[in-house]
Amino acid sequence: MKLLEERILKDGKIKEGNVLKVDSFLNHQIDVELLNLLGKEWKRLFEKDNVTKILTIEASGIGIACIVAQHFGVPVVFAKKTQTKNIAGDTYKSRVESFTHGKVYDILVSKEFLTPEDRVLIIDDFLAKGSALEGLSKLVIDSGATLVGAGIAIEKGFQNGGALIRGRGIRVESLAIIDEMADGKITFRKQN
Amino acid sequence: MKLLEERILKDGKIKEGNVLKVDSFLNHQIDVELLNLLGKEWKRLFEKDNVTKILTIEASGIGIACIVAQHFGVPVVFAKKTQTKNIAGDTYKSRVESFTHGKVYDILVSKEFLTPEDRVLIIDDFLAKGSALEGLSKLVIDSGATLVGAGIAIEKGFQNGGALIRGRGIRVESLAIIDEMADGKITFRKQN
Repeated sequence: MKLLEERILKDGKIKEGNVLKVDSFLNHQIDVELLNLLGKEWKRLFEKDNVTKILTIEASGIGIACIVAQHFGVPVVFAKKTQTKNIAGDTYKSRVESFTHGKVYDILVSKEFLTPEDRVLIIDDFLAKGSALEGLSKLVIDSGATLVGAGIAIEKGFQNGGALIRGRGIRVESLAIIDEMADGKITFRKQN
Repeated sequence: MKLLEERILKDGKIKEGNVLKVDSFLNHQIDVELLNLLGKEWKRLFEKDNVTKILTIEASGIGIACIVAQHFGVPVVFAKKTQTKNIAGDTYKSRVESFTHGKVYDILVSKEFLTPEDRVLIIDDFLAKGSALEGLSKLVIDSGATLVGAGIAIEKGFQNGGALIRGRGIRVESLAIIDEMADGKITFRKQN
């Protein structure tokens, strides 16, 4: 998506260890207007899939998911990273490794919010090694719901997450795929 | 706000320790349509305040804040709970105690996203003892920005946070204020 690529080039910053900082518009400060344009594009891409629920993971996925959900007219469910007093009862659980934060944690969703009747679109801000997306996919599959696919804002195409997940037959629609970040220069993958 | 009160009565559940569970529509599964109605109401209440930024705290505040921000046409900034690789450089910092999670943590906002020119509306899902709201207010004040006020979805009026924050001259607009939760019965404060 041209508009997102241009925004990354304009406002993104490359930090040590191939960390792309997009915190001025995506995951610290949030440009809600931009999110609406992403939402519109995913709606176009998944228009015929009868999505009934948007699934994401706290924290930075939530804002995107909520704006996107408006375009589909469905609720959002966000997977939680810790067991709190507020999430009691039966949950679906899977394990996620965060390379940005350098830790492994469980993610949880209450069983009442994912049912076999659901057709789920996963939304997240980043796809790199694919651990979060894999964990979220497992929650959907465990619930018996149908996984329609995943909408990712920015995919790091030089890491293996996208290939891994697509290799399992899961449809992944990333609106910007970065094939290379070298010497402060970002190269995007050509997409239709 | 009648509609929110009715939704709490219909779908809220009271758990041990005066925990109100609203995770079917507010902070695990999210009813985005409802959030839009809350956003419309806060827009009415803060219409004349020339809000330039919505500030919230991860995680459950983010979805509400993003939907609300659409009504004001401004960006969201969410305070982060941990220092990660993605939030480098100068930050405003304050300390928050979470009674739900039973821990104390720092919250951070990059200095570049709160400036003296900003007029900030804080948005959050809950107000109980007021620690999160106090921490967020401190970030705004430290930045030199103007704190326009706070929009809270559900205030626990039987705890002292609301009185504490209002006592400091900060405008707090809670769309539902619960004065009592006893024997599974919820009593709301009458508001205009």
